[in-house]
Amino acid sequence: MSGVSGMLEGRRASRGRLITLEGIEGAGKSTVAVALREALESRGIEVCLTREPGGTPLAERVRALVLGHGEEPLAPQAELLLMFAARRIHVDNLIRPALERGQWVLCDRFTDATRAYQGGGRGMPADFIETLAGAVHPDVNPDLTLLLDLPVALGLSRAAGRRGVPDRFESEDVAFFERVRARYLELGRAQARFAVIDASRPLATVTADAVAALGRVLQA
Amino acid sequence: MSGVSGMLEGRRASRGRLITLEGIEGAGKSTVAVALREALESRGIEVCLTREPGGTPLAERVRALVLGHGEEPLAPQAELLLMFAARRIHVDNLIRPALERGQWVLCDRFTDATRAYQGGGRGMPADFIETLAGAVHPDVNPDLTLLLDLPVALGLSRAAGRRGVPDRFESEDVAFFERVRARYLELGRAQARFAVIDASRPLATVTADAVAALGRVLQA
Repeated sequence: MSGVSGMLEGRRASRGRLITLEGIEGAGKSTVAVALREALESRGIEVCLTREPGGTPLAERVRALVLGHGEEPLAPQAELLLMFAARRIHVDNLIRPALERGQWVLCDRFTDATRAYQGGGRGMPADFIETLAGAVHPDVNPDLTLLLDLPVALGLSRAAGRRGVPDRFESEDVAFFERVRARYLELGRAQARFAVIDASRPLATVTADAVAALGRVLQA
Repeated sequence: MSGVSGMLEGRRASRGRLITLEGIEGAGKSTVAVALREALESRGIEVCLTREPGGTPLAERVRALVLGHGEEPLAPQAELLLMFAARRIHVDNLIRPALERGQWVLCDRFTDATRAYQGGGRGMPADFIETLAGAVHPDVNPDLTLLLDLPVALGLSRAAGRRGVPDRFESEDVAFFERVRARYLELGRAQARFAVIDASRPLATVTADAVAALGRVLQA
């Protein structure tokens, strides 16, 4: 084994980091995710960019069940179980293998979205959500979570400008998104892995702050 | 309100019973279910015959995810969460409304199948299964469960004669079905709501025993 391939082997052996992006509709997550990927790749880090619910073909089929406006009611609890089923598939079949290869995973929404949407938004009990989270991904948790926070009215007006047919979440009312935002902010205050970024500012500023927040995990 | 419509109103107001049919492949559940329906209808009882996983269009979409041979692995835990998501949809959108209308529900497999297949067969922890069962259907539980028991080899040989492409469960090996059968029998011994019927006998005998077992709930 040559020195170079030895270095590469060593690099592959170190586990990657999981960085999650959270926020309500219109916060700018997609744009920020692309900027983060570029910033990491410019440092020679391999990046896997993915999203929830979904991220693999099978998990995307679960996503379609959850987000679609179906012919039948879908209770918040059934929605919650589908979210965690999709997450288990995503963690097993994409996120964990990528981390074990040494890639960094940038995930547009993860379990904090469940805490905010199904917990804050739909009122599902926090202890039940934590029981599921602990069972589904005990070994895979975010190293850094960027919460892009902005007033609900601003987020919804931005999102309305770009979307087609609204999905089951996008069809919710302002009060729902206020509860989601409030839960996100509670989580952001309670846990050190969060960087809360004011996403009401121009997107270039938001993106620069998000890239700067990477310093926390790049130095660690 | 006339006397007759008053009687009908009174009848509609009394909650129906939930009768579940359990057993491994080839036990004869489908044939027995039809005979049970006829026996109940001959007494003037309205019957809703359904199955799990599935039973409603949305829950059948979850069934297709669980039973299909997909391009991706599906962890036992993800399978378990999908089963309970489908069950919540089924209970909300079909079983509970039918019971509240006064119909009796005959369901081909319910949570005992999860205990036997995901618990016994796949090794998922019983306490996690009970946590989910308690959360998903606290108010809807079987009044009577008919367990059609037979040796695995006999069940599989019967099932092999009639089926097309085997699904993800039908593709399992004999040892898997031995674990499923053993867990079913443990449940049958532990809980009074079970009637365990020897399904290795001729189907007419099995059916007669199943119809006789209805006496438990018809007299109650």
